[in-house]
Amino acid sequence: MTATLATQSDVFLYERVERRVRTMIEDGVLKPGDRVPSLRQMHRQSRVSIATVSQAYLALERKGYVEAREKSGFYVRRRHDIAAALPRAPSQRGAPRRVQVGDVVESVISASHRPGVVSLGVANPSAELLPVKALTRAMGRVAARRTLASVRYSLPEGMGELRRQIAYRSREFGCQFAPDELMVTSGATEGLATALQVVARSGDAVAVESPCYFQILRLIESLGMLAVEVRTDPDTGLDLNALQRNLGKLDIKAVIAVPNFHNPLGALMPDANKRALVELLAERRIPLIEDDVYGDLHFTGQRPWVAKAFDRTGNVILCSSFSKTLAPGYRVGWMAPGRFAKQVGMLKSALSGTTASLTQLAVSEFLSTGAYDRSMRRMRRTYAEQVAQVRHAIARYFPAGTRITNPAGGFVLWVELPDGIDGEQLFHAALERGVSITPGSVFSTTAHFGGYVRISAGLPWNERVEQAIATVGELAHAMG
Amino acid sequence: MTATLATQSDVFLYERVERRVRTMIEDGVLKPGDRVPSLRQMHRQSRVSIATVSQAYLALERKGYVEAREKSGFYVRRRHDIAAALPRAPSQRGAPRRVQVGDVVESVISASHRPGVVSLGVANPSAELLPVKALTRAMGRVAARRTLASVRYSLPEGMGELRRQIAYRSREFGCQFAPDELMVTSGATEGLATALQVVARSGDAVAVESPCYFQILRLIESLGMLAVEVRTDPDTGLDLNALQRNLGKLDIKAVIAVPNFHNPLGALMPDANKRALVELLAERRIPLIEDDVYGDLHFTGQRPWVAKAFDRTGNVILCSSFSKTLAPGYRVGWMAPGRFAKQVGMLKSALSGTTASLTQLAVSEFLSTGAYDRSMRRMRRTYAEQVAQVRHAIARYFPAGTRITNPAGGFVLWVELPDGIDGEQLFHAALERGVSITPGSVFSTTAHFGGYVRISAGLPWNERVEQAIATVGELAHAMG
Repeated sequence: MTATLATQSDVFLYERVERRVRTMIEDGVLKPGDRVPSLRQMHRQSRVSIATVSQAYLALERKGYVEAREKSGFYVRRRHDIAAALPRAPSQRGAPRRVQVGDVVESVISASHRPGVVSLGVANPSAELLPVKALTRAMGRVAARRTLASVRYSLPEGMGELRRQIAYRSREFGCQFAPDELMVTSGATEGLATALQVVARSGDAVAVESPCYFQILRLIESLGMLAVEVRTDPDTGLDLNALQRNLGKLDIKAVIAVPNFHNPLGALMPDANKRALVELLAERRIPLIEDDVYGDLHFTGQRPWVAKAFDRTGNVILCSSFSKTLAPGYRVGWMAPGRFAKQVGMLKSALSGTTASLTQLAVSEFLSTGAYDRSMRRMRRTYAEQVAQVRHAIARYFPAGTRITNPAGGFVLWVELPDGIDGEQLFHAALERGVSITPGSVFSTTAHFGGYVRISAGLPWNERVEQAIATVGELAHAMG
Repeated sequence: MTATLATQSDVFLYERVERRVRTMIEDGVLKPGDRVPSLRQMHRQSRVSIATVSQAYLALERKGYVEAREKSGFYVRRRHDIAAALPRAPSQRGAPRRVQVGDVVESVISASHRPGVVSLGVANPSAELLPVKALTRAMGRVAARRTLASVRYSLPEGMGELRRQIAYRSREFGCQFAPDELMVTSGATEGLATALQVVARSGDAVAVESPCYFQILRLIESLGMLAVEVRTDPDTGLDLNALQRNLGKLDIKAVIAVPNFHNPLGALMPDANKRALVELLAERRIPLIEDDVYGDLHFTGQRPWVAKAFDRTGNVILCSSFSKTLAPGYRVGWMAPGRFAKQVGMLKSALSGTTASLTQLAVSEFLSTGAYDRSMRRMRRTYAEQVAQVRHAIARYFPAGTRITNPAGGFVLWVELPDGIDGEQLFHAALERGVSITPGSVFSTTAHFGGYVRISAGLPWNERVEQAIATVGELAHAMG
């Protein structure tokens, strides 16, 4: 997995090949165990280079559609869930829209916290999966060893040891950060908020994925900015053609994207697309704000690269955190602000001061001992299983025509309901039966996602969760 | 100490009486041990009610100028430092100004962190005074007992136990908060930033004290707002007459004030002024953002009330934290957002999400066991001594004509240098000799405070500190 050279038009060809094979599989033209057309055959059929075909096949392998057999080519994998089609990605009219999701989101969040509710509506890591005890021990050790440092202000840019740990790990996702290129933040949220305030002002238009994580929409709403929603593929992420059209037409000040395991789509943007996205925006000097909080939660062997890995001009502001992988409640995030370092530093310092020292030290200790890697191996395996099980249950209990994503990482599923079933109605009905899900409408300023819901696979799989999904399926059947 | 009824004009009379007695003491008309004119005499002389005179005398007592002797009246106290006059408060032309203090402030802060420098330039609590070990133990206890809660997200508004502790204590400063009127923030900084963003927008004018804590100026700068500086008395705080004139003349969207132990002045606004300030702004529906981070650091018996105590319309947004009293590095603050609760909650949630759970639990535990009160008693005593000693040393080593504040709380001193001595020049010269102080210029958008410096008494008093002050004094002599 690496950065092969790719131009923007390569990307579009590559996607075309990938989609073509996928459609053949989903339509049953290719069946489990069948050999996929060879690289050479596909090269002739589709008139794209062998390198491009090869990249498309590797992506299909990564996503579990095909498997490579040595010296024999690619074969369709046997997958229990291959039958469920992916949700569709509606086209968008590219218009800046005022965001107003706040109230709905509040009610969804508070519903998910009601006691007794089976919470499939919140994309928080399950507490059972977090390395709670090991982390608490790490915290105890640093509190004893670094007692003074743990109560003092850290530097505005964060504790040196934590930034060194993150810099050291940045090669895993294609970067080679020096510690002083990094800034510690209170969760990724603060990083995104600071980045956005540096690159745009109230009234400015910002391009986002559609659907878009509702906290990003709320951020845009809070800052009085406008959102331009760009078609986003449930598999490959942001549609670069659609983005390009919008950039030509509208005065867009920044793009915010979640290329790795997008929430709610779970989409993983191929490296070639990441590179093309970065180049497209660098040419126009439009900053890319990249949110990578799910990047460590990949189900296959390889940690995906970030778009920032292809950044040669400092135009990408990368934001991440340990909230999804280690301890949401520690509020330890970080950012690599690129060419905006000075403004970001000043704004962060003025708006919130420094980040808590003790939790930074605890995370740093946890990273340095290898405990984080051990925990992540376990967590990835568990999420991959839980996602498969929840997906399977949805396919089983929901009405025919339901479409479900098949993410290669993260822990959320995006579900397109059959025609005529309304996501908000299903949300309310499910809540009455003690199950929370998230209506698709909160992920957009448009009406496109009224027929969608997000279902989290963050809870440990058990009968109660299966029963909850069965209940929602039953309600959906009744609405169909 | 309580809220006697006071109208706005009472306040001005009250201040007049207080200032009159103070001038008599400072000019030597009244000497240590002398009896101050009786309430009745002063009532006749100054033509204000006995109640008003009585309040002025109580304020003088609180500030250490006079002492009450039972059934005998008020007497001038013997104070080693009575000779040093208070710095003067220049009048301000009330004009909104764009703030540009960022760069200078950065260099002052980084200078103060240079290894080997005696740091009289940073208003951080001295680590030696913080209850580091007891707090770390409290943290260990909660981490063991509340392991899951400590790594999970807290509610957006903060952990219930911490808000209950703060609500319980709010009677000490004149409030009777319910826990759900409070919101936990990452330090007071986040509270102030959120409050300001809710009540004003880029380009709006905000009234501040002059001089003004530079982080507040940076906040205004970062948000693209304009600052209107209002004359502020080194003893009684914000000049309400001056504020009133500005409100009549300019479109001011909010007032930010630090009524208790203002930084850098150390001023303590009398209760009657707090009430008058709150009423003045409530009439005009202009929100008051109150910063009370120093309120617990009073040198006399009584914890001063906050202006919020006089708020009947929810127009005051009170922000505070435990950064100056417990652990700067924990980043645990809180706010009482009054009628702005909903907007503040949504903005805080969108911009930074929740506040770290573990540190909230540790602070809550520390408050509930009484450890906080024990620690504060020790800290107050120590700061009172350190402030007296630093003040004494400045009076001794600085050139004649130097004026020094005499704060009744906090740990900073504001120093007016004799004519012709420049604060920034003194800052640079002192830094070359290994001592950091803060030039007055960073506390203002105007040129009024070029001849002032702030000196912190946060460091434990010892020969090294005395020598540092002697060095700065020597440099000042050479510049005079």
